[in-house]
Amino acid sequence: MLRRVRHESLSALAFLLALMPPLVSADEPVSSAAAAAVPTPPHHRDGRFQNNYLDFAPRGLGALLKWKLDAMRDGLPSEPTTTTPRQPPEIEFLRRNAAAGVAMEPTATWVGHASVLLQMGGITLLTDPVLSERVSPLSFAGPKRALPPGLAAADLPRIDAVLISHNHYDHLDAATVKTLAAQPGGPPLFVVPLGVKAWFTDAGLDNAVELDWWQTVKVGSVEIVFVPAQHWSGRSFSDRMETLWGGYAVFAPDFQAFFAGDTGYSKDFADIRARFAGRQGPANRGFDLALLPIGAYEPRWFMKEQHIDPAEAVQIHLDLAARRSIGIHWGTFSLTDEALDEPPRALEVARRQRGLADEAFTVMAIGETRRFPRRGP
Amino acid sequence: MLRRVRHESLSALAFLLALMPPLVSADEPVSSAAAAAVPTPPHHRDGRFQNNYLDFAPRGLGALLKWKLDAMRDGLPSEPTTTTPRQPPEIEFLRRNAAAGVAMEPTATWVGHASVLLQMGGITLLTDPVLSERVSPLSFAGPKRALPPGLAAADLPRIDAVLISHNHYDHLDAATVKTLAAQPGGPPLFVVPLGVKAWFTDAGLDNAVELDWWQTVKVGSVEIVFVPAQHWSGRSFSDRMETLWGGYAVFAPDFQAFFAGDTGYSKDFADIRARFAGRQGPANRGFDLALLPIGAYEPRWFMKEQHIDPAEAVQIHLDLAARRSIGIHWGTFSLTDEALDEPPRALEVARRQRGLADEAFTVMAIGETRRFPRRGP
Repeated sequence: MLRRVRHESLSALAFLLALMPPLVSADEPVSSAAAAAVPTPPHHRDGRFQNNYLDFAPRGLGALLKWKLDAMRDGLPSEPTTTTPRQPPEIEFLRRNAAAGVAMEPTATWVGHASVLLQMGGITLLTDPVLSERVSPLSFAGPKRALPPGLAAADLPRIDAVLISHNHYDHLDAATVKTLAAQPGGPPLFVVPLGVKAWFTDAGLDNAVELDWWQTVKVGSVEIVFVPAQHWSGRSFSDRMETLWGGYAVFAPDFQAFFAGDTGYSKDFADIRARFAGRQGPANRGFDLALLPIGAYEPRWFMKEQHIDPAEAVQIHLDLAARRSIGIHWGTFSLTDEALDEPPRALEVARRQRGLADEAFTVMAIGETRRFPRRGP
Repeated sequence: MLRRVRHESLSALAFLLALMPPLVSADEPVSSAAAAAVPTPPHHRDGRFQNNYLDFAPRGLGALLKWKLDAMRDGLPSEPTTTTPRQPPEIEFLRRNAAAGVAMEPTATWVGHASVLLQMGGITLLTDPVLSERVSPLSFAGPKRALPPGLAAADLPRIDAVLISHNHYDHLDAATVKTLAAQPGGPPLFVVPLGVKAWFTDAGLDNAVELDWWQTVKVGSVEIVFVPAQHWSGRSFSDRMETLWGGYAVFAPDFQAFFAGDTGYSKDFADIRARFAGRQGPANRGFDLALLPIGAYEPRWFMKEQHIDPAEAVQIHLDLAARRSIGIHWGTFSLTDEALDEPPRALEVARRQRGLADEAFTVMAIGETRRFPRRGP
């Protein structure tokens, strides 16, 4: 089996190598410095973006080869010993709840990977929706879904807003975006990072609004704030860091949610907690729900700057003072060296080490819906 | 410049490597032997295909790496010193001629690479049409067009039939096929190799007919015969040799044309000449026009089995006893190690070595239309 797998990986490499243009024309526009009149935020750098606490440079060929060859040598990732839990979705409940207006119960439904259906404040949101079979620019190669989405496109209630954290293929999927844009009754509002609106325009979709960090957009009574994360962006060789990345804080009158996107660990989360202290009520209670990535973290020497591990996710849960967190970004696509079923086990260990109650930071089954109490004053 | 280019190539490799699934599931169907009742032709092998005179196996990773690393070390391909000739197309003439019925003048117009617009016997055909910017499964990488097509989609006369030689990306282009299928008045007939019809069906196009070698289809008074070539097929890792490849002999009452597709040198061309001796008239004159590939041949140790060089193209011209040949498959996409402008120079040398008249085997400008005399009895 392993030998077969290695052979397949090498074939893939051979094929991809064959695609390489003998000469890649060096025609990237080198943008000149922005107009100097208005001070640009420090994360804006000559037409590209950077992180607040780390100048990120994607690793070079040597590191990438070392990662992949080490993984091949060590037979990583190991086969998972358990399958990601999955349960039938509550399609009718979600539809009724979507139409309930002020009577809407706050809910979260895990669709898989970083795709979560959120209902709060009378609207239904979807984070980083990906319903496709692969997360890759190639239709026939790249990470393949281990199990179907928890909700099929036809099962979705009407989506009011889609939150896109960044433009990597496992977070921004062309086919899914087009499917959502074609929902009966008109497209949702696509809330996207600065620079990503052009991708929607190119796809013929004009219903996107792009936000810089800390900028907001309101949908009904719900305020959506784009917040920093420590990551990067890019869909090809030449567009790295050209569009922004981040997470979202979502404030409804009766519920406050946080969606981290992809991130390494940084002081950004303490900053977020501090920034929103004024709007988290007299008791200054943190988000009612934080959706935090817990997968895609091995090997640490390669991933640490861009992907937290479960222990760092617990630290972010604490930094945010979140009332409950749910671990996402695992169990769906095998992207890195840890086994597909490892993140929840590592989360459990980390949770106990920090003395957290089991229910404070859990995982869900794909397709599962959690209902949450409304936020008090 | 070169250093920059090398860096870009390595970035491309790094990026593509990053796409590799850590585990590619080994789920290729292994087709069992075909039913034994009817003897299968020797080029049909357990659900895949093979050549007549060579059992072709795509080269492995080692050879591919050696090719690419050698080319990088040697700075290949060299920059061309001349640009591929190009001239404005005769759009109005081609339209009038397309509608001229029996008064149609036989013509050939080079659109670029292996795309040729052929008019003969009252119909207009297109070989391996590619109008896209890149020939690759990736929208942002892979060989890029050096200059625009000789005819834009909007400039084309009505196309009656499209001849597809095989399913490599520089011969079967999804965007171009869809554009042609949407031409006013209905799609052309897509004549494709055995196994390729499914690709059209998947794309929602039902106007394709697939042929085995020596099978024919008639369009008006024109008979189209699919003929062998020595090559291979595949659009992904796992579908190599699953669909057939070849060339086309096209017989109109007053003109006979040959389109080779992609091929290495083999006895197939002497076979083709022999096979059609009975229908080339009392004087047994060869094809009035042969369209033969003259580019994508270096390095020979890697390419010889799958791509002829200009000297071998001259040999095929002689094997076929073609009255005139035109060298195509050059000057458009840089696929291999020879410079983009090298093939016509090598053709001139080869032609003189074999004592051929200059006009017997020439090249065209992109966009140029050649008119040919009608074939006598």
